[in-house]
Amino acid sequence: MRQRILTGDRPTGPLHIGHYVGSLNNRVALQHTYETFILIADVQAMTDNFEQPQKVRSNVLEVALDYLAVGLDPRECTFVIQSQIPEIAELTVFYLNLVTVSHLRQNPTVKTEIAQKGYGEAVPAGFFVYPVSQAADITAFGAHLVHVGADQLPMIEQTREIVRRFNSLYAPVLVEPQALVGETARLPGLDGASKMGKSSGNAIFLSDPADEVKRKVMGMFTDPHHLRVDDPGRVDGNPVFTYLDAFDPDRARLQDMKDHYSRGGLGDVKVKRHLLDVLEESLAPIRQRRAEFARDPGAVMELVREGTALGREVAAQTMSAARKAMTLDYFTQA
Amino acid sequence: MRQRILTGDRPTGPLHIGHYVGSLNNRVALQHTYETFILIADVQAMTDNFEQPQKVRSNVLEVALDYLAVGLDPRECTFVIQSQIPEIAELTVFYLNLVTVSHLRQNPTVKTEIAQKGYGEAVPAGFFVYPVSQAADITAFGAHLVHVGADQLPMIEQTREIVRRFNSLYAPVLVEPQALVGETARLPGLDGASKMGKSSGNAIFLSDPADEVKRKVMGMFTDPHHLRVDDPGRVDGNPVFTYLDAFDPDRARLQDMKDHYSRGGLGDVKVKRHLLDVLEESLAPIRQRRAEFARDPGAVMELVREGTALGREVAAQTMSAARKAMTLDYFTQA
Repeated sequence: MRQRILTGDRPTGPLHIGHYVGSLNNRVALQHTYETFILIADVQAMTDNFEQPQKVRSNVLEVALDYLAVGLDPRECTFVIQSQIPEIAELTVFYLNLVTVSHLRQNPTVKTEIAQKGYGEAVPAGFFVYPVSQAADITAFGAHLVHVGADQLPMIEQTREIVRRFNSLYAPVLVEPQALVGETARLPGLDGASKMGKSSGNAIFLSDPADEVKRKVMGMFTDPHHLRVDDPGRVDGNPVFTYLDAFDPDRARLQDMKDHYSRGGLGDVKVKRHLLDVLEESLAPIRQRRAEFARDPGAVMELVREGTALGREVAAQTMSAARKAMTLDYFTQA
Repeated sequence: MRQRILTGDRPTGPLHIGHYVGSLNNRVALQHTYETFILIADVQAMTDNFEQPQKVRSNVLEVALDYLAVGLDPRECTFVIQSQIPEIAELTVFYLNLVTVSHLRQNPTVKTEIAQKGYGEAVPAGFFVYPVSQAADITAFGAHLVHVGADQLPMIEQTREIVRRFNSLYAPVLVEPQALVGETARLPGLDGASKMGKSSGNAIFLSDPADEVKRKVMGMFTDPHHLRVDDPGRVDGNPVFTYLDAFDPDRARLQDMKDHYSRGGLGDVKVKRHLLDVLEESLAPIRQRRAEFARDPGAVMELVREGTALGREVAAQTMSAARKAMTLDYFTQA
């Protein structure tokens, strides 16, 4: 039997090229090797967007279109909408008993995010406990592997702790997952910020039209001291070259360009035009597939509905085993 | 349409005469007036008994037998096992977004209980957030009234806050409940402790055989200074008289006894024998009905199964309305 892998995204905005090189292209490559579940995590998105449910709702379709556009194949992958799987909520409630408040408080990922969002003690309880919900996501589908960024490792460790506790208290019914850390680092933003963000205004979206991509690339932050073409330029920390590192398949040519830029004589406009060509080689077919699927949103949602139904079956099996392990199975058939 | 009332118990042990005078007899009286849902709260019981799930499991039947024994009529009341209603878990997860960690920390009931249990910061997250789960219990069944003790009023207030927040953020689909505070104060323990407790060894259970009740009553704590029959005795704080206050229908005779005891000349044994007679007038028929139902546990669980199925229908309607209000209804029929 193939090992099962879980990945997913929060439907809080369309996906961008940072998602593509950090995760989506890996998923596409792995979908034939692993039984792949892809969770559209609307319940998790609600933990810090509960005042804008329509934003979450409307982005479910956008994210599904992005998946199809990059080549995730619904015959290979199961797309699941989190809110349609009550078993995830049920597992969450039982797992909450197995983790203390002080332990959650020490979770490095949550700690950082609470600080970034400026919540302090006024953190919504749903956001505070989201590592527990994530443990429910992962275990509901019996995932052996979870595809994450390095900063998400504490989340996987929290899941593993909950699994070990549950299995030793009740019965060994849950799969203890392993993290599969993505190889490619995160892309910086167009503005040189350390991270490309859905809502930071510094992203190239997979759904951006070609002229929009051009506008964004030509306006990118580069080396602010590279004022004239003849000046030597910095390659390190220059997002144009970071993007080329991620997208340009011709490594020798890229090295030549970097050397030229470093010693001076290569203008930003020329490098950006090259980046645009390279990007378009990936983005043009994605954009075309996306436009095709976008013509029939009903058909896309039907694919998602089918995936969700399959995901529900798997989650129901897990919940049934968990219920039995806890001896809370009152009405099961003999 | 009749107003709906929700009550319930944690299945952590058989019910005792403190439950009877504090709540169960009121429920019996109200079952014809209100549409009554009675929640056997096994998920809540797990929050501080998660290491002993069998204890929770086995007490579900005991509690159901106690209900039937006191005269709760399954044609009038709906008995529901909490763990079989996934919608409660789903609502809990969404409600967690509407309450902050600091607000939960200030809940007086939870604060007291965390101190009593000596949890400190090592409080299990499930226990910490149980006011939110309770809001889900109450609203899932659209209860207009919740029958509680005075110490539980902060829990109802928390539910009302969540309801108002949900209804104003999304759409007015949840019923804001009112508290119906029980008239009778809690019974003290046989040992004179302020509260009769399921697991304190100071309770008379509805399931106790007659000789056990006799043994317990004759061994009750009274006035420790009432050494000889002729000595004046204290009535206040004497649990034998507190029980008589709760159970003796003949108030004039009871007042005579109190006067006699206060001035001296009435022995403890005589008062206890009277209490035993009075108690047995209530307990003997309860014990007899309990024994009859206990002969066929399968039939009792079938009643509970039917109630739970009806409860599930109501909760599913609530969840469906809540999902629609949050716009997370992707696949509902047109």
